[in-house]
Amino acid sequence: MNRKIKVGITLGDYNGVGPEVALKAIADEMITDLITPVLFGPERILEKTRNELGIEMPTYEVVRSVSDVKDGKINIVDIKCGECPVSPGTPTAESGHAAVRALEAATVALREGRIDVVVTAPICKANVQSEEFSFPGHTEYFQDRFSDPESPETKAQMILFDQRMRVALVTTHLPIGAISEAITKESVGDAIRRFDKVLRSDFGCERPRIAVLGLNPHCGDGGLLGSEEQQSIIPAIREASEKGILCFGPYAADGFFASESWRKFDGVLAMYHDQGLAPFKALAGAGGVNFTAGLPIVRTSPDHGTAFDIAWKGGADPQSMREAIYAAIDILRSRLRYQQAAANPLGRAKIERSVDKTVDLSKDSL
Amino acid sequence: MNRKIKVGITLGDYNGVGPEVALKAIADEMITDLITPVLFGPERILEKTRNELGIEMPTYEVVRSVSDVKDGKINIVDIKCGECPVSPGTPTAESGHAAVRALEAATVALREGRIDVVVTAPICKANVQSEEFSFPGHTEYFQDRFSDPESPETKAQMILFDQRMRVALVTTHLPIGAISEAITKESVGDAIRRFDKVLRSDFGCERPRIAVLGLNPHCGDGGLLGSEEQQSIIPAIREASEKGILCFGPYAADGFFASESWRKFDGVLAMYHDQGLAPFKALAGAGGVNFTAGLPIVRTSPDHGTAFDIAWKGGADPQSMREAIYAAIDILRSRLRYQQAAANPLGRAKIERSVDKTVDLSKDSL
Repeated sequence: MNRKIKVGITLGDYNGVGPEVALKAIADEMITDLITPVLFGPERILEKTRNELGIEMPTYEVVRSVSDVKDGKINIVDIKCGECPVSPGTPTAESGHAAVRALEAATVALREGRIDVVVTAPICKANVQSEEFSFPGHTEYFQDRFSDPESPETKAQMILFDQRMRVALVTTHLPIGAISEAITKESVGDAIRRFDKVLRSDFGCERPRIAVLGLNPHCGDGGLLGSEEQQSIIPAIREASEKGILCFGPYAADGFFASESWRKFDGVLAMYHDQGLAPFKALAGAGGVNFTAGLPIVRTSPDHGTAFDIAWKGGADPQSMREAIYAAIDILRSRLRYQQAAANPLGRAKIERSVDKTVDLSKDSL
Repeated sequence: MNRKIKVGITLGDYNGVGPEVALKAIADEMITDLITPVLFGPERILEKTRNELGIEMPTYEVVRSVSDVKDGKINIVDIKCGECPVSPGTPTAESGHAAVRALEAATVALREGRIDVVVTAPICKANVQSEEFSFPGHTEYFQDRFSDPESPETKAQMILFDQRMRVALVTTHLPIGAISEAITKESVGDAIRRFDKVLRSDFGCERPRIAVLGLNPHCGDGGLLGSEEQQSIIPAIREASEKGILCFGPYAADGFFASESWRKFDGVLAMYHDQGLAPFKALAGAGGVNFTAGLPIVRTSPDHGTAFDIAWKGGADPQSMREAIYAAIDILRSRLRYQQAAANPLGRAKIERSVDKTVDLSKDSL
């Protein structure tokens, strides 16, 4: 089956910049030549965004269910939220509820193979906490929905990347005070192994080289500033190396990013959120993409938040959202190619990266 | 007294890049038109560095004591270390000992007013630990030597800066596991007040604007990912604001550096080492300077370490060392001007920033 890739896009908290960056990212006549966008959110909000912010975009189809999605059109799966009152920059019960319902509809659509990948606009984590959603973020939500409890390998890994750098995290949404105890030989080793696998399958690296950062300032300075390097990180690197993974380090985070050392590696493994993301975002600017790796589905998102301070003013930059959409497609193609190659090793040499039509999008191969 | 500023330069661990970057930074015929450099280190090592790496530099005076330093010349205060065996890239007892002795000689010289500022080349922290030196780094060493126990305001504050950005830290050389408990309303408030003062006196900002980062990912996401923001950071910002300090935040570190928000502020206050330094160094590249603020003396250093992997190969970049030298001079001048203005407020309008000759370098004004 050689149809267009169906890209699900959830609108996030509609009092943030989600609707604006989503619409801007697909507001191009050519978009449906490339993909079939399927937006999940209240149609009322999309209309309002389009009218109030003057976003010119092609006509779209409003569908009640993902089974009605039309190939080659922009589709909107309407999420009902009553009057959908908008209070720009202030999250409300309605906007939180609509965000969760959009996410759930997209999850069902992914499960049923009605969409091929999902790109999520930002939610306000504090606003969506409820019985229906009790996760620190999208990453943990998708892990809950798509990881296989029988197979520990299907575990979410948060990866931020742009054209030059890929950063994975050992711990994601943890308070600083809880990080030290979460850094063990097992957790670091597990993250190295999974990152190696993701770089091979989803980014097309044949022999990925991974840089592993330390946890403490100056990598603990030989034990003076913490012992996790000696006790956990170095043994994990050693063990992974013995198993043939090309991983190196630990490197002190500040020096590592100072010297552009990251250019020599296919991936950088950071121990915690800000250690990896603050320097990554400083370098990536508006073009970074967040990818939830390690699950049977492909989920990406822009690397910014709800940006309530600039919501509904028309000035939000859709660059990261656009990159997230194209990245999801690239990752899906890479993964399918890898799976096909792995399924039939003898045929591998025939697969050329530039020929996308060889990729089989039938559900079985996902 | 309008003499040239005497810049003390300690060579650090001589098995690292210290001697190379120090010599390269002052290897210019013009240097003595601007300053009187006073190097603290083994003359034997300097000769070897010069010969082996082919660094062309003006002749220099070897002095046994800082009281013999010659104005308008390059001076070397010879630190004896026997044969001074060199093992490039490997710290030894001899190189550690020489590093500490150089530091102590420079400290005495600062106390006696024989040098005006000090610029330190990197040491290997693990290598110098001994009865004579038991500090996690230079910052803590200088705090111990120059803080006044009777005046809690004379406390070291680590600041990294380049032409565009100044980053101060609330905690410096602490293991990750110890940071949370070190972040209190008092420690954050204290850091804000001291940073504000430093920006005024040492960087010439009349009404400094300070951005304060959060501690946890996404600033704790409203309490879901940690409570230090609510309990300590926000109250500290509020209290400082009430006292007239222009401080704002807390900002999530990753988003803050993504959006170039730092351009709107005179200073950024980070909660811990890697949170501030990794993104700073990613942006600053080779030009960053480390400054130990808050003490009666001025100490700067390059923002890199011993770089053992490239030591004695001739390829070390002296840019950061050079910036550290010029920064120390700028800071000293700014501080003297500020002190003079504060001593005689009516005369303040007469002081023009560009006229350096108005600065009085006599010891009393330091």
